[in-house]
Amino acid sequence: MRQLEISRVFTLIEPGPVVLVATRDGAKNNVMTISWTMVLDFKPQFAIATGPWNYSFSALQKTRECVIAIPAVDLLDRVVGIGTCSGVDTDKFAKFTLTAMPGKFVKAPLIEECLANIECKVVDLIAKHSIVVLEAVAAHENPTRRERRTVHAVGDGTFIVDGRRLDRRKMMASKLPKGI
Amino acid sequence: MRQLEISRVFTLIEPGPVVLVATRDGAKNNVMTISWTMVLDFKPQFAIATGPWNYSFSALQKTRECVIAIPAVDLLDRVVGIGTCSGVDTDKFAKFTLTAMPGKFVKAPLIEECLANIECKVVDLIAKHSIVVLEAVAAHENPTRRERRTVHAVGDGTFIVDGRRLDRRKMMASKLPKGI
Repeated sequence: MRQLEISRVFTLIEPGPVVLVATRDGAKNNVMTISWTMVLDFKPQFAIATGPWNYSFSALQKTRECVIAIPAVDLLDRVVGIGTCSGVDTDKFAKFTLTAMPGKFVKAPLIEECLANIECKVVDLIAKHSIVVLEAVAAHENPTRRERRTVHAVGDGTFIVDGRRLDRRKMMASKLPKGI
Repeated sequence: MRQLEISRVFTLIEPGPVVLVATRDGAKNNVMTISWTMVLDFKPQFAIATGPWNYSFSALQKTRECVIAIPAVDLLDRVVGIGTCSGVDTDKFAKFTLTAMPGKFVKAPLIEECLANIECKVVDLIAKHSIVVLEAVAAHENPTRRERRTVHAVGDGTFIVDGRRLDRRKMMASKLPKGI
């Protein structure tokens, strides 16, 4: 895994891919699948929508940290599997043969199989709307991975795979943050 | 435009497409481009990240309503154009030849050229994090439109177009809301 500049981290979340949220509560790693995420600024801070109905939420609340990992399309069946069982009674890292790697700033594990991993601290919990505000403190990407297409959940059990990329950098020059 | 069941509206936002936010302040329509959006629940409520740096924010604050319109890839140059000028000095509906149509429950305009339009009420403004919480009150889709691929902003001036769709309905059956 290669370190990714913190100023570029928002570009992992902005396209809206399905992500994995890894947590570590005591000695126990856990991971959940979510697609309800949003960039809040270029620092970057993100919002995710989750609450007590997700087992991972108690670890988020208690440890105030997590890793957001970005899976590619070849992991889709594992991503869906992770999203349809619970850490209450399942060791998901074992069940889905995920490799936990140590982070630099958080105890939550990075996931080796993913395209990128973002180490995050919980900045705020907005209970009224079940929003968790995260700030990225470090990020790592796997530049050797061949399959780089992510997936977007529709919410009805179907997923849209990334297609081709269109370049509008010139048109958008005035709006892009410096160095991006 | 055909009415879309309110229970299905979250499936327009969950994949994370670039969207247009249309507002009406007095007699003046305006529209902005954003990709910082997130589903909050199946009601559906959404969050969008915006603040005083967007001219549309004052209309959102004042009128407490808007329309979220979903453009397809054939509108990308207009979408980028809308995102790189301001309603302060531009009539964007005229400049980008968008057709404003009346909504049922909000004064903000629907955009005829888009795939779908969601009429929204502002439920909450979380100033600390520049989050606006919206609730959909009605939605309309254009079933006759041929180009249906949406685009996902990366944040660096490039955009990923929807590729193919993968079906995992069976695997996800236990997790899908009823009727979806």
